Amino acid sequence: MQTRATLLAHCRDTLGAMRREGRYREFAHLEKLAGRFPTYRWHAPQGVREVTVWSSNDYLGMGNHPAVLEAATAAIGTHGAGAGGTRNISGTSPLHAALEAELAALHGKSGALLFGSGYIANQAAISAVLEALPGFIVFSDAKNHASMIAGMRGAKDAKRVIWAHNDLGDLEAKLAAAPAGAPKLIAFESVYSMDGDIAPIGAICDLADRYGAMTYLDEVHAVGLYGATGGGISERDGVAERVDLIEGTLAKGFGVLGGYVAGDGELVDFIRSVAGGLIFTTALPPAVAGAALASVRTLKQDPARREKLAERAAALKSALDAAGLPRIAGPSHIVPVFVGEAELCRQVARRLLEEHGLYATPINYPTVPRGTERLRLCATPFHTDAMIAELIGALRAVLPRGAMQQAAE
Amino acid sequence: MQTRATLLAHCRDTLGAMRREGRYREFAHLEKLAGRFPTYRWHAPQGVREVTVWSSNDYLGMGNHPAVLEAATAAIGTHGAGAGGTRNISGTSPLHAALEAELAALHGKSGALLFGSGYIANQAAISAVLEALPGFIVFSDAKNHASMIAGMRGAKDAKRVIWAHNDLGDLEAKLAAAPAGAPKLIAFESVYSMDGDIAPIGAICDLADRYGAMTYLDEVHAVGLYGATGGGISERDGVAERVDLIEGTLAKGFGVLGGYVAGDGELVDFIRSVAGGLIFTTALPPAVAGAALASVRTLKQDPARREKLAERAAALKSALDAAGLPRIAGPSHIVPVFVGEAELCRQVARRLLEEHGLYATPINYPTVPRGTERLRLCATPFHTDAMIAELIGALRAVLPRGAMQQAAE
Ligand SMILES: Cc1ncc(COP(=O)(O)O)c(C=O)c1O
Ligand SMILES: Cc1ncc(COP(=O)(O)O)c(C=O)c1O
Repeated sequence: MQTRATLLAHCRDTLGAMRREGRYREFAHLEKLAGRFPTYRWHAPQGVREVTVWSSNDYLGMGNHPAVLEAATAAIGTHGAGAGGTRNISGTSPLHAALEAELAALHGKSGALLFGSGYIANQAAISAVLEALPGFIVFSDAKNHASMIAGMRGAKDAKRVIWAHNDLGDLEAKLAAAPAGAPKLIAFESVYSMDGDIAPIGAICDLADRYGAMTYLDEVHAVGLYGATGGGISERDGVAERVDLIEGTLAKGFGVLGGYVAGDGELVDFIRSVAGGLIFTTALPPAVAGAALASVRTLKQDPARREKLAERAAALKSALDAAGLPRIAGPSHIVPVFVGEAELCRQVARRLLEEHGLYATPINYPTVPRGTERLRLCATPFHTDAMIAELIGALRAVLPRGAMQQAAE
Repeated sequence: MQTRATLLAHCRDTLGAMRREGRYREFAHLEKLAGRFPTYRWHAPQGVREVTVWSSNDYLGMGNHPAVLEAATAAIGTHGAGAGGTRNISGTSPLHAALEAELAALHGKSGALLFGSGYIANQAAISAVLEALPGFIVFSDAKNHASMIAGMRGAKDAKRVIWAHNDLGDLEAKLAAAPAGAPKLIAFESVYSMDGDIAPIGAICDLADRYGAMTYLDEVHAVGLYGATGGGISERDGVAERVDLIEGTLAKGFGVLGGYVAGDGELVDFIRSVAGGLIFTTALPPAVAGAALASVRTLKQDPARREKLAERAAALKSALDAAGLPRIAGPSHIVPVFVGEAELCRQVARRLLEEHGLYATPINYPTVPRGTERLRLCATPFHTDAMIAELIGALRAVLPRGAMQQAAE
C-alpha cells in the first residue's frame, strides 16, 4: 500500500465531511489587547476590526492584570524566556517551587505539582493513579472533559464505568455493583464547562466514603473564581479536605498557562516520580510560573473580583431571559445559548462577528453532543451593561425563531 | 477496599524503593540568570550559591537572547499574560499564525501546527495519524522518546513494531515481514538525546519509499542547531522534503516553550481538526509564540551560533578524551559521560554540585536503561575553555576509577 496517498485521501474526505456538516473549525485570528479586555482586534481576510469577545476563558481578566504582567516581565528580564530543561534537568526554578507551595496552600493540601497544562495534568495524574494498583475501577461522570478521559484511557488495565452526569443515584448503583475488593476512583468536575452546572461535591464524597473510593476533582473552570480565596467550588462548599486530588488550570481564572494537581504530599510525590507527562517535557518558563504565582496571590485577596463576575453573569442571564433568548439554565458564570444544529451554529457565530463585531465561538461536536450545538458566553467583570445590551440586540437579529422555540420546549 | 490507604501504602513503597535504588529524583532549584548563562543560582537548603550548569537544553542560549526577551516583553505588554482560550475559542492570535507559517517555511512544508509542547505534539500527532486508517503498523526505533511512544500507545488499534536502534537491516527486515497491504509509519528521531547519535534519515526514507511507508521524524534535539537555517538534520542532509512529518520543539534550541509538527498542509489540517491534545487545551500565550517567532527568525540568520556550538562540543569532547574520561562517543553536541550505576551516578552529580559548583543531571532509569546511567553534558556557545577545564578537573576528582575503566572496555 502507498500509505501517503491513502492517508491524504482520508484527510481530504474527513475535512470535506466536516465542512459539509458545518463543523470544520476555522480559528479566528484574534489579537488580545492588554488593558482593553474584552476588546480584541480581529484579523480577517478583509481587514482588521475591533470586536468584543464573549467567549474568553480569561474569566476574571487576570491575563491583563498589572501585577501579573509586571511579574511576567520582571521574570523574563531576570530569568530569560524559557526554562531550558525538564523539571529534573535544570528546569526547576525557585518560582516553580513557590508556585507549587502556593497551590498546595490554596487547596489546603500538603502537596501540589505543576504541569504544562490542565490537559496534561489530568492525563498524566489520572493515568499515574490508575496504573498504581491492579484492578482499579474509575467511575467517570458522563460529561467529563476529554483530558480526563485521555488519562483513563492511558491506564490500559483500569476499568472505566461511566455514571450519568451529576446523578448520585446512578453513581451509587454503580459503586454498589462493583467488586468490594477493587480499588476505586470517582472522577468528576465541579463546574462543567459547556453547560455551566455544578457537581454536588460533598454528596459525592459521602458516596466515596461509603464505598471506599478515592475522589479526583477537576476544578479547571472554578479555581480563582469561587471560594473565599479562589480555591474553587470545593472551597466554597467547605469540602476541599474531603477530595483526594484537586486538579486545576492556571490558564483560565488565573489568566496565564499551566495546570496542576494538589493532594496528599506523598501521593503527589509519587505522581511526580512516575508521570511521563511531567518527566519527559520541558518545564514551564520561569516567567509563566512567576506570572501565575502573582495571579494566584492577587486573586486570593480579591473577593470583589469574584463578586463582580457573579454579578455580571447574573446581569447577562437576566438580559437573555428578558429578551426571550434560549439560554441553557445553570448556576455558574458560564452562560450557554442554545442553537441545536452545527451549520446553523456556525452561521450564527459568523453573522455575530461579521455584522455585529461580536465574537462568540460556535461549540459543535465532539465538544458537545450533536443536536446540542450552542454559543458559550461568559460575561467577565469587564463586560459592561452597554456590551450586554449590544449582544442581546445582535442575538435577536441573528438567531432564527425556530432555534428560540426549540430551546423553550 | 479502602482505596486511599492502599494507594498511599503503594506510594510509600514505590518512593522507598526508588530511594534505595538511588533513582529517586530531587529537582534541584536552579535560578536561571538571563545575561549570565550558563551561570545559575542554586538554591540549596544550606543557602544560595552560583553554579555552572552543564545540563541545559537551552543549547544555543536563545532563551537569553536580547531579541527573544524583547519580543516576549513587548507581547506581554501588548497582549497580556495568557491566550485566554483554546486555539478554537478565541485563543489564536496573529502571532500563533505567523509562527506556524514560519515553522512550515523552516522545514519547506506547506503546513505546520503548534502544540503546548514537543511532548504533546508527538503524542497528539502520532495518535491522530495512526488512528486515521485501520490496521496501521508503526515501526518505532527502539530508542524513541517517551512522548512518541505515548502517541503510539494512544492509538489503540495500531500495531507497534520496534526495530533495533538506527539499524537499517533490522528495519528493512521488519518492513518486509509486514503485510504489504497495511498502512505503515516509520517513527524515529534525528539526534537521540541521551546518546547523541544521529539517524541516517535519507536511508530510512529510501526504505520508506520501497515499502510504501510514511515517515515521522522527531527533530527536537536538532531544530535551530543543524542545517543552514536551523531546520535540523533533515535540512543539513538535504532530505527534509522526503520526510512526511517533522516534529520539533521551541523549548530547546529555540529556548522558549512549545512544540509543533510540519508537513503536507492537508495532513496538518487533518491533525488540527481531530487531535484532542490540540483542541481541548488552552493555546500558548501570545508572548510565548512571539518569543519563539523571534528566536526562529533570529537563528535562521545566525549560522555562526551553530558553528560555535559545534566548536564548543568538539572542545569538550577533546578535553574529556585527553583526560581519559569515559565519554560515550557520538557526532552531535550531546556529550554523555558514562557512569553505569544509579546510586553512583546520583552521588557523582551531588559531589560535582556540592564540592565543585557544577550542575550535571544524573540520568537514570527509565530515561536510559539500567546499567547505562550517565551524566549528560552540553557545551553551549557560552561555555568557555576555562569552564571546560574546571569541569574536567572536577570529573577527575569525583568519578571513581572503576567507572572509567568499565567505560573504556
Ligand atoms: C474541564 C477541563 N479540564 C481541563 C482542561 C484543560 O485545561 P488547560 O486549558 O489548562 O489545558 C479544560 C479546558 O481547556 C477543561 O475544560
Ligand atoms: C526526543 C524528544 N522528543 C520530544 C521531547 C519533548 O519536547 P518538549 O520538551 O517540548 O515537551 C523531548 C524532551 O523533552 C525529547 O527529548
